[in-house]
Amino acid sequence: MQLQSLTADIRNTLSTHVLFKDLSEETFKKLWVACVGIKAKKGETLFLHGEEAENFYFILDGWVRLSRITEDGDEATLDMVSVGRTFGDVAGLQQETYSYSATTTTETKMVRLPNDMWVDIIQNDHKTALNVILSMSNKYKQQLTEKEHINFQTASQRIGCFMLKLCDQDANDEQDIFLPYDKSLIASNLSMKGETFSRALKTLKNETGISVSGKTVSIPSVEALSTYTCNACAGEFPCGDHA
Amino acid sequence: MQLQSLTADIRNTLSTHVLFKDLSEETFKKLWVACVGIKAKKGETLFLHGEEAENFYFILDGWVRLSRITEDGDEATLDMVSVGRTFGDVAGLQQETYSYSATTTTETKMVRLPNDMWVDIIQNDHKTALNVILSMSNKYKQQLTEKEHINFQTASQRIGCFMLKLCDQDANDEQDIFLPYDKSLIASNLSMKGETFSRALKTLKNETGISVSGKTVSIPSVEALSTYTCNACAGEFPCGDHA
Repeated sequence: MQLQSLTADIRNTLSTHVLFKDLSEETFKKLWVACVGIKAKKGETLFLHGEEAENFYFILDGWVRLSRITEDGDEATLDMVSVGRTFGDVAGLQQETYSYSATTTTETKMVRLPNDMWVDIIQNDHKTALNVILSMSNKYKQQLTEKEHINFQTASQRIGCFMLKLCDQDANDEQDIFLPYDKSLIASNLSMKGETFSRALKTLKNETGISVSGKTVSIPSVEALSTYTCNACAGEFPCGDHA
Repeated sequence: MQLQSLTADIRNTLSTHVLFKDLSEETFKKLWVACVGIKAKKGETLFLHGEEAENFYFILDGWVRLSRITEDGDEATLDMVSVGRTFGDVAGLQQETYSYSATTTTETKMVRLPNDMWVDIIQNDHKTALNVILSMSNKYKQQLTEKEHINFQTASQRIGCFMLKLCDQDANDEQDIFLPYDKSLIASNLSMKGETFSRALKTLKNETGISVSGKTVSIPSVEALSTYTCNACAGEFPCGDHA
């Protein structure tokens, strides 16, 4: 893990983000001074489940895995988070310990912010509290959709859905997308065993004509992929959901 | 659906609930006047996915299923909610349409509250906004645990976990519990097919000595049930989680 200088660009990214956009100039300055820029290699652990929730993180670039280890020693992926997302803040809100571990799965650039200052801001700044509510309600709705998909999408459809979230959904034709992290992690985040994932990916290739070479997926028709995938979903495509 | 009179007891239940406890006397009175007491039979639809989110509901007694129908016509159970829980309010926060349908699965008593007034309160009452954040962060943590369980618990363990949430977790010995709704709905809420549920319940009976007669489950040893169930969970038993 390396410290990184915080540029004017990063300041701008942060100050226009939904969570921070309504802070007063003075409050934002105070928060900004407490921010630390961090660059981590793939596979670095940022914090462990059960540690005191001192800081939260804002992702500028890369991917982070949120996970928990069960009594049996298995590691469950709870979420994969990327650019513009925060993590570690919900535990901070309740001044508790982290409810998951966080590990980078790619090279990742982040801003680290102190939870005590953030809680203090929310407790005193009403507009920001409302923004936190909005952000949490979006997260809640995403989790509901995920549960719906686990209920009724086949494994192939859930992989298709994952790919559609990486597409430019407004372009219906041919597209290449890039898988952002290892297939084993995609499987784990979709709550699938490795063998299930491999079998389902094969079916998806046969049904929709996609081909996979390394981390690149060539999709001959986004429309065909969405037709195959989205009939087991209560939403409509394009849904605007992004990975 | 019948209207019910709102008693002093109900007023007390509401005014001491985490969401409403910090309202000023005056604000609570305004909200109370807008409350409607409702008693619904089993199987009544309170609202449909996609309808304008005019009201939200606070459950006094009974169970409500939150669900969505996919394009294919399947109905996915997103959550089962009971006493002390609200539903329909997250959509209200964003002044949107409901993101699920709500149907009673038992005779259910509720208080119906107007979302526009509630949003207005949250926008003006900082303490209540903080209580909403706390309540949402608890919901978020429950959803994370659910995802962890789908990843690593066997179907039998997940049924065991469901039963442990209905137990008095501090008493380790023999207990009878009562299944609050139909087995098919328990299966659906645990994202299992009917056949998987039946097979897994049989395994659970063999492994832990529980017996099921109608809706009554006799548990000879809560300790044996938790030993079987909780080794595939990152939490500790007793966990204090309730159905």
